This record gives sequence, C-alpha cells and structure tokens, in this order.
Amino acid sequence: MKVVQVVGYNENLKMAEAEQPTATSPLDVIVKIGAAGTDIHILEGQWKEKSNVKLPYTIGHENAGWVHEVGNGVTSVKVGDKVILHPLVTCGLCTACRFGDDVHCEDSTFPGINVNGGYAEYLKTTARSVIKLDDSLEPADVAALADAGLTAYHAVAKAARLLRPGNFCVIIGAGGLGHIGIQVAKAVSAATLIVLDRNEAALKLAKELGADHVVQSGEGDDFVKKVLEITGGKGAEAVIDFVAEGGSTSTGVQMIRRAGNYYVVGYGENINVPTIDIISTEINFIGNLVGSYNDLAELMILAAQNKVKLHTTKYKLDDFQKALDDLAAGNVRGRAILVP
Amino acid sequence: MKVVQVVGYNENLKMAEAEQPTATSPLDVIVKIGAAGTDIHILEGQWKEKSNVKLPYTIGHENAGWVHEVGNGVTSVKVGDKVILHPLVTCGLCTACRFGDDVHCEDSTFPGINVNGGYAEYLKTTARSVIKLDDSLEPADVAALADAGLTAYHAVAKAARLLRPGNFCVIIGAGGLGHIGIQVAKAVSAATLIVLDRNEAALKLAKELGADHVVQSGEGDDFVKKVLEITGGKGAEAVIDFVAEGGSTSTGVQMIRRAGNYYVVGYGENINVPTIDIISTEINFIGNLVGSYNDLAELMILAAQNKVKLHTTKYKLDDFQKALDDLAAGNVRGRAILVP
Amino acid sequence: MKVVQVVGYNENLKMAEAEQPTATSPLDVIVKIGAAGTDIHILEGQWKEKSNVKLPYTIGHENAGWVHEVGNGVTSVKVGDKVILHPLVTCGLCTACRFGDDVHCEDSTFPGINVNGGYAEYLKTTARSVIKLDDSLEPADVAALADAGLTAYHAVAKAARLLRPGNFCVIIGAGGLGHIGIQVAKAVSAATLIVLDRNEAALKLAKELGADHVVQSGEGDDFVKKVLEITGGKGAEAVIDFVAEGGSTSTGVQMIRRAGNYYVVGYGENINVPTIDIISTEINFIGNLVGSYNDLAELMILAAQNKVKLHTTKYKLDDFQKALDDLAAGNVRGRAILVP
Amino acid sequence: MKVVQVVGYNENLKMAEAEQPTATSPLDVIVKIGAAGTDIHILEGQWKEKSNVKLPYTIGHENAGWVHEVGNGVTSVKVGDKVILHPLVTCGLCTACRFGDDVHCEDSTFPGINVNGGYAEYLKTTARSVIKLDDSLEPADVAALADAGLTAYHAVAKAARLLRPGNFCVIIGAGGLGHIGIQVAKAVSAATLIVLDRNEAALKLAKELGADHVVQSGEGDDFVKKVLEITGGKGAEAVIDFVAEGGSTSTGVQMIRRAGNYYVVGYGENINVPTIDIISTEINFIGNLVGSYNDLAELMILAAQNKVKLHTTKYKLDDFQKALDDLAAGNVRGRAILVP
Repeated sequence: MKVVQVVGYNENLKMAEAEQPTATSPLDVIVKIGAAGTDIHILEGQWKEKSNVKLPYTIGHENAGWVHEVGNGVTSVKVGDKVILHPLVTCGLCTACRFGDDVHCEDSTFPGINVNGGYAEYLKTTARSVIKLDDSLEPADVAALADAGLTAYHAVAKAARLLRPGNFCVIIGAGGLGHIGIQVAKAVSAATLIVLDRNEAALKLAKELGADHVVQSGEGDDFVKKVLEITGGKGAEAVIDFVAEGGSTSTGVQMIRRAGNYYVVGYGENINVPTIDIISTEINFIGNLVGSYNDLAELMILAAQNKVKLHTTKYKLDDFQKALDDLAAGNVRGRAILVP
Repeated sequence: MKVVQVVGYNENLKMAEAEQPTATSPLDVIVKIGAAGTDIHILEGQWKEKSNVKLPYTIGHENAGWVHEVGNGVTSVKVGDKVILHPLVTCGLCTACRFGDDVHCEDSTFPGINVNGGYAEYLKTTARSVIKLDDSLEPADVAALADAGLTAYHAVAKAARLLRPGNFCVIIGAGGLGHIGIQVAKAVSAATLIVLDRNEAALKLAKELGADHVVQSGEGDDFVKKVLEITGGKGAEAVIDFVAEGGSTSTGVQMIRRAGNYYVVGYGENINVPTIDIISTEINFIGNLVGSYNDLAELMILAAQNKVKLHTTKYKLDDFQKALDDLAAGNVRGRAILVP
Repeated sequence: MKVVQVVGYNENLKMAEAEQPTATSPLDVIVKIGAAGTDIHILEGQWKEKSNVKLPYTIGHENAGWVHEVGNGVTSVKVGDKVILHPLVTCGLCTACRFGDDVHCEDSTFPGINVNGGYAEYLKTTARSVIKLDDSLEPADVAALADAGLTAYHAVAKAARLLRPGNFCVIIGAGGLGHIGIQVAKAVSAATLIVLDRNEAALKLAKELGADHVVQSGEGDDFVKKVLEITGGKGAEAVIDFVAEGGSTSTGVQMIRRAGNYYVVGYGENINVPTIDIISTEINFIGNLVGSYNDLAELMILAAQNKVKLHTTKYKLDDFQKALDDLAAGNVRGRAILVP
Repeated sequence: MKVVQVVGYNENLKMAEAEQPTATSPLDVIVKIGAAGTDIHILEGQWKEKSNVKLPYTIGHENAGWVHEVGNGVTSVKVGDKVILHPLVTCGLCTACRFGDDVHCEDSTFPGINVNGGYAEYLKTTARSVIKLDDSLEPADVAALADAGLTAYHAVAKAARLLRPGNFCVIIGAGGLGHIGIQVAKAVSAATLIVLDRNEAALKLAKELGADHVVQSGEGDDFVKKVLEITGGKGAEAVIDFVAEGGSTSTGVQMIRRAGNYYVVGYGENINVPTIDIISTEINFIGNLVGSYNDLAELMILAAQNKVKLHTTKYKLDDFQKALDDLAAGNVRGRAILVP
C-alpha cells in the first residue's frame, strides 16, 4: 500500500510502498483510512526528542475511516463501520488506564508520532482506540477532531467543570484548536466567552460561533485592559491559552482573576511567573495534553448533535506536499486533511 | 496600651503608645492578645507594595488571646473565651465569602500586614474572625498556627483531597510551615511522604513527625535521583514546595509524576518552565495562599486532637527586637512568638 | 401598611394592617415589595410542624422589589435599586454559612414560612439576602424565581456538574419548577433531556424550551419502557423528580442507569426501595432543598442573559384570595404572583 | 482438579471433579488458589435471580493465590507471583471501564457468583483482574479482602473524600466488613468515628482498631440519642450502614446531620423515608457495591503498610461444609477462608 513518510526533519515528506497490515491479535482492528490530518510541528522536529521515533516512518496522527478487518476478540465494531481513532493505542492495564486517564498510559504508542500513522491506505490499531461514528458523520469531516479537536475539547471541558453562569472564560487563539474550543464552551457551559486573536477573520468566525466578546490582540497590552474592563476589573475565572508563544502567557496571566485558572494548551514559550504573584492571588496553571478515549467519544456526540463543526481543507493523499506547504504558509483555513 | 510598630522597612521596630480599641459595631470583638507571631519578610518590605500600608503601623499577623469585649450582635463568643484569630477580617457579603473562599474576600483587611496587628495588648477584630479554642489549647501554643500553620494546612489538605493510599507526596522544606504540613498530611491521608530539607536537624524532626522517607537536599541534583528512585522512577503525585527559592522549583519540577500537581507555597524565585514540558506531561502548578476561616477551625480540631503540635520559642512583648534578630539570624527553632 | 396573613390552616387568608418596618441594624435592608409569590402547600399546613410559626403571620416567600431604606453598614445596594430576595435570612457566621451552604445556616429565618413574608407593602431583610437585579429585569418578572426557580436551578445545576455530553437526564414534571429546570439544563449542560409529564400542554412547553424527548406519563408503566428505549435500555444517568408523589418515585427509580443519581425535589410520597436494589446497581438518592444565595445570583445571570424565562400570572395584592383559589383549582399557568 | 459446587439453594455444597483450566487467550491468567472466601447469602439464594447462574457451579468469590500459567500477552505478572483477584472479570472496553468504574462494566463476569469461582484448586481469570501482592502479604491473609474488604474500602474511602477533621462518621456494624471499614477510615481521614454494634465483643474490637466512640445498639432508640449527644445534637456528616436490616436504616437516618450522607452497604430491608424529610434536610442516600480494581490495589497498599488487618478463620478445602455451617451458626470471628 501507499504511505507518506518522514525521511528527515525539515525535509519534504516522501511517498513509499509498505506492506498492508493484518489483524494478528484478538483485539486488533485494521482501518481503511478515510481521512488523516497532521501538523507541521512534527516535521519541524519539535517532538523528535520526546517521541524518539526512528526515521523513516509514516506520518498522520489524526485518523478516521472504515473498519477493514477485526481480530477474533473484537465485538464493539464490525467490518464496514465508520470509525474515528483515538490518537493513542493504550494498554488498558496500568493504573492510569484503570482510572480512565488513558492519556497517561504507561505502555502506549502514538501512531503518526512514535509509530507509523495514517498518511497511508490502511492503519493497524486495536479495539481500545476505535469509536464508531454516528450515521450522520463522515470520516473526512471528523478526522482532525481526533487530536486537535480532542485537545481543545479536553481543555475546555475541564475548565467548564469549574465555570458557573456569568463566570468569564478567556480563549486565547481562535484558530484550529480555538474555534473548536469556543463551540465546546458554548455547548457545555453558561460561561461568558471572551475570545482573543491577532487575526480579524478569526475573530469574525469566533463571533459567529458564539463568542460573547472578541478582542483583537497584538502589540502593546491594550487588549489586556479591554479584557479587564469586560470583567469588571477583576479578570477571568479561566484563561485557556491555545497559543502559548509570542508573549501570550505573560499578557494572559494578567487577565486571570484571583483564585482563577490558566489552562496551558499551546506550547512554545515558557511559563515564567514570580511565585509571589502565584501565591498572593492563589492562581493555578493547568497543563493539558490530548483528551482521553471517553473525551473523544463525547466530542463525537457533540459533533453528531451538530454542536461542534470543524472547518477543513481537503487534499488527496498524492497531494500531501501541497497540504504541508499550504500549512507552513498559513494558507489553510481550519485543518488540512488528507483523503486517500 | 503598648504596641510595637514598623517605622521603616529594614529598620528596627519601635514600641509606642496607642489608644485601646473598643467595640463600636454589633459584630466587633476586642481581643486581649495572649500571643502574637510574625515573620521577617514584612520588615524586609516584601509585602510593601502589595499591602500599601502607611507607616508607622502595628505589626503582628498571627494572633490569639482572650475575648475582652464584644459588640451587641456577637453570640458565638463571650468575654473570657480563649480564641485564635483568622488572619483576615472579611466582609461575608461578596461572592468569594459567600462561596466559603473568604481568603479572596473583595473587601478584607489583614491586621499586621495592611492595618494594625497584634504586637499589642489589645486588637480589634470581628465575630467573623474569631474561633473559640478547645479547653486543652492555650493562646501561646497556637498563635503561630493562625497564619504559618494555616497556610501549611490549607496547601496540604488541598493536596490530600487528591492523594490515594500509596501515592507519593514530596514535601520540600521541613521548617516552620513544613513541619506542620507533615503532621497534617499524616492526619488526613495515607499518602507516602518524602521530606526534603538541607538541614539534618529538620530531617530528624520530619522523621519523628511521621515522614516515610527523608532526603537531604543541597548542591547538585543527587537528591532528585533519590526521590525518583523512591517513587519507582515515576515521580510523585504531589510536590508541596514550602521553599520556592534557591532553585527549589527547578529541581522540584523534576520530581512530579505525569498528571501530578506542584503546590507553590513558599515564594522567592520564579516558576519558569517550558510549556511543552507542562503539556506533554500534563502537570499543574497550584497556588496556595493562607487558608480560610473553616480551614483554621479544622486545624484547631487537629491541634485539640493532638495530631498537630507546633514548636515555638516565646519572647516577652518588650523583647520584640531580640525575637526579630533571632529570626533574622536563623536562631529560632519552630516559630517565634511574642507574649504581652 | 397592608399585609395578607395566614390566620388558620385550610382557612382563607385575611388582609390586615401592620406597622411598616424600619432599618434598626447596620446591615438591615427594607424592601418595597414589587412582587411576591407563594404556594398552597403552606396554607394546607404541610410546613406547620417544621416551621413552628405562630399565627397569624404574613405569607409570601418569593419576593422582589426596590430598596426603600438601608442600615448604615450596607454598601452592596442603595435606595432605589431593584432587588430579588434570597428566601432565607442567614447568619453568615456558622460553619455552613462559612462553607457557602447558607441554606443550612444554623441560625436562619425564612420570611413567609416562619416569620413575616412579602404579601405586604414592605419587607425587612438584610444585606446578606438581597441581590441587585440587572437593568433588564423587573421584580414582577423574577419574584417567583426566588424560591421555586431557585430550587429548580439548585437541583439541576447540581445534577449538571456530573452530566457529560450524551448523558441522559430525565426530568419528571414540567410545571412551575420543571419548566425552569429544563431551561437551566439546556443552559449549563449538553445532556440529552427527556421530559415526563401527564399534561400534554406541559410537554408542548417542554419541547419549546428545548427538551430533546418528551414522554407523556400516566397510568401503567408504558412510559418507563419508552424512557428505557430512548436510553438504549440502560436508563438515565440522572433522574430529577419535581413531583415525588402519585407513584412518581417508584416508576422513576426504574429509569436510573447503574451508578446513576435520583434527585428528589418534589415531596409527597416516600422513597421506598429495597437496599439490594440500591447496592446492586449502586444508585444514589440526592436530596435537594432551595439553592444558596450564590445559586440565586447565578440564576439571575441566566435570566438577564435571557436563557431562563418564567411564565407568570399576576394578581393585585387585594386579589390575593383569587390567586390562591386559582392555584388550588390548577388554573394558574406558570407561577401566580402578587403585585402590591 | 477438586472443586466445591452449589448443587441447589439451601442445600449442602458438594465436592466434585472438574477439568483444570488452561490459558487460551493472550491475557488469560491461571491462578493456583491459595485461599478463597465466600458468604452464606449466595447459598440462601439471595443473588439467584440477579446472577441467573446455572447449577451446579463452583462457589468462591474472594480469591488469592499464585500465578500458575499466563497467556502470551501478559506482562504484568509472571508464573509464581502471589496475587489477589479482583472479584470481577471486566472487558476494559465499555464506557464504564474506560472511566475507571469497572464495577459497572457492561460485559463482566463474577466468578463464584455467576460463573465458576475459587473453591477449587485452580481458577481462570485475566490480566485485568490480578493484583500482585507485596512480599509481606500471603494469599490466605488477604483473600477475604477481595470482596468483603474491598466493599468496605470502597464505601469508606468514598465517604472519607468528603469528611474533614472533626466531622463525625457513624459506622453501623463492626463485623466482617465494618472492622475493615474502621481501619480504612482511620488510615485515610481525620474524621471522628462513632461505631455501633449490638455485640459487645465487636465494640471492643472496634475500640482497639481506633473507634473514637462506641455505642451499643439494640432495642429501643436510646443509642440514637447517644449518637446525637456525641455529635452536639446535630448528627453525623456520614453514616455508613454495613447492616441495613433489622431496622438499622430507620434509626440510622435519625443520626444524619443536615446535608449529610447515608452510605448503604448492607442489604436486607428497604430504605423507606418520606421525601419531605429528604428534601427539608437535604440528605443523600449513597449506594455502594464492591470497589474497583484500583480500589483493591489501594487496599492492598494499606494492608502492606499494616494499616488494615483482617481477622480470619481458616479451613481446609475438604472442610468446606464445616466452614459454611460455622458461618451460618455465627461461630466465625472475622471471615471464614478455605485453603486448598
């Protein structure tokens, strides 16, 4: 089968031939890829050290498609079912898995990051990673929810569990993750949303998706003042930072209310805050990785209920290079998706 | 009456005469001070900017004594009762007070920090700030629990609510706050305690108070390796940092387990951590200020049950300067307490 | 001033003259009543024993209006402000108040239940019980949210904190409380709502307010089967019973999923369930009283955001008897409100 | 191999021969039974209907021993390891398992209840159900913790998460489950324990295990008054009922404080309480089944730390009938354990 591989960091991807996977264990599931997404951070080598993957390998960590073959122990899906894949393949046996925190599985793989991923015709996963799609959803429409969307869901749903009607929630960044986060926040809470972005078009979309206030960020810190004004001078109970670079954390921290929470989702710069500021206002910094299997199942419910919609640009598998080039050039609205 | 005042930062305190306070509002309570504590950070001016207090003013923010006079609306205590004072005088009407987070009261004062405190013969407070002591407790034994002990209780009890049997809890610093924290952790959880300190005597005390493991910290990072070994290479579910200076945060962060929590209690240096490290392990940094009124009431219960004991060195009010000098020189074991 | 009094249970109310109250303590607030609500259970004597009130007394436990006079310690509202009154006058000093559970205040009064209420021209309360209304809200529009609406908000918001997207929430009873509960559930959660009522018009309203499924209840237990079908045979994660009489609890319990919660809000019959059924499915029965002051503040936010609207029928104070008669005869749509 | 079977309800068990199980799936684990426990409720047929098991089958639902054989996918244990078995064999794939609530697995079996259990030489289970024992623990010492002890741990740990220092926790019944519950409560909380039992010897043991107060229950309700006195007339924040028969629930409910929780663990009679009593005090009834796999792992940690010790009476497998007879006659102190 055809696969698209990383052959070197900051190099172009290459198409190659690979053997089609088959089910060899009772819980194996072979998925015919219907759509796959990725991002440019991987090609830039940002996960190189943490993933420790050996090149070349097949990229693609946001995958959806149809069940092609199942091991003899699989009862939850059958051949032909439309499915989305949780980004991790987890053990189900460690303490973290047993608590439902499968993201912290002590024996997991991350297809597309540290093993072969979904820029391919077929992908091998297990019954623990597949979620059957509602009839109304198609693989190409939801694939990018498998990681980017899931991360946004996880962070926002976590924040929302503490937000009460009238509480303020600042969302920094209304891009690929942020525009999902806005929709999730509106679906699961009655918090008042203040959305920040440098880009006017992004703010326009944010407003359409339900943002109660939008504020254009940029140079200076006038936008901090605006947020403080909106919150009656007290700051927001939650700040969710989908950017975390270019200074967003230092201005972001100024927008938190006493006893508030700063949700770190993006990554780039450091969190660098005097401890006296942390303790005198008693604020928290909350890390956010991708969501759990159950988080993804819940996000698929919101998608099936039409409460969360993903903006995507689709490319054929053969046009993988154009997709990556467009991404790098910032020319993709929403998420870029490869369709084999 | 006699009072001890701050007349300038990094200057010696001065004794002065002040008018004895009287109850003028229905909920006022006048307390005859039985013991008062403070720390040297205030004299160093570390709270100068945040407190905005006008000099001279009476220092002393950890206070206990006997009720001397009550306003006509006070029913919870009567003249002669032994009491400890919550460090804040709060409004009881704002949203934070109404949620029980009185530490974040929007209209509070902090006697000894931003208004006159307890290095005095009498102090004026309100029914909202006094907690009646158990017969078995004396003001001089518990006064320093009013702020230092309360802060330790608050942070450790918060951490303990997430700790399960066998989870590891690292306590950085077994000094004035840390030695209370150890006792609280043993009383309210079945977590395994690992206590770090540079000082051998402090570690000896920690062991006596119930620490399951003690590790001497210092130069290098061998102590980080030791903690990781104790935790099976995974790190601790909770790290409670009572120091937060001299590099304790950068080594401390290396001891957290995936999805673990870092409790910031001490203050001095910055938390300075790459966001990719925060998100890839999904760790949290939790700020901790002093505890609430109910926290202090619970700490007094642990004290009455003999589960928490405070080590103190007592001075007469007239010897205030010696107390501060001893504190500055690091010659005080436990907490220094002034007894008028 | 004119007041409407209970002179005997199961007897008609009587209008009488009473002295107009004045502020005598620093936190007192005198409210000119703009609207007041009550229910017929009080006249039937259902709270007679628990309230221990001495007749005659002024009825009216859902009150809103304008601030007429304030004690010298009141800063949160000023004369002329539109306000709604939390149904309890609480002490602010007991452990429950200090935890934010002011509903369980150990020293509270309940105007209209155990002291004089709001079927009057003026009512005396304190700064602890008044919530300033948003400019967009009028006393007569929100008065009945002060108790009936608040109870619904409290129960539903509590349930919602455990409900995740796609979870099922059964609401039994779409009347005075239930129709508020439906709106609250839609505002603060993404749960799927199944609303039951015997009355077709009530179900029609439920549907308009956002119910995902409506099921007519009545004789037999076909409606139980329908609910089980909707939930895929597993039952609902939450059942909120605003009725709790006429057998609703015994059929209601059959609709709970394993590990689910049954929220008791209405009262009439007994909860009578074999312990083996409780433990083998590990279900919970959750009691619900009226909400806290902060709950009411949040409900007022939802009302100001137009997310919760109350259906009311208004009567002049002089027509109090007609209001009660209409209520008893079941002729009131929504809540009956008296406007002095 | 030899097995002991249920051949009819309210009939004697019979010894029989059965084929020794072998590992046929990758995650299978064959355990050589070191000790097995059960209770008489099963023989009385109390679970007959709910379990729907076909007779004859092998009894024994509390099992521990040594790993005898493993499937080729098992890495968590190896042949020879000492293990205790979680009472359920769960799927690891359903929503409940994925949330860590494996007790509510939608596709589980319960060896000894609805499939063959551990009154046998060997038992087949899976890697999802085995927990490796600490070196200091022996199968015969812990087997009865696998269900009875686990149930007590689960209920008490759940209660403890809401209990603060000085809160009162009433434990009804200091027998097989209760004596474990007392030890767990002392290990994980600073609540004040009040233990009730009809039996003086049980109360003596309770006192030794750390009960702060013991009260002999029996006819009349003097013991209710005593509990109310101990709690200052307010009742206990938590009542944990390990009995739930003979009227314990109706007296137990009188001991709950406003906003308190009643934990149902035992089963026999009905919970039968007027809804007006539930809502006017806002109390909750919390169902409790056996604990999760992680609960059992935590209980094994408390056992290894010597914080929980089980009192047992051991019998040889051949003496199975005597064990059951002794149990039925109430002649067993602690739990009866069969050792093959």
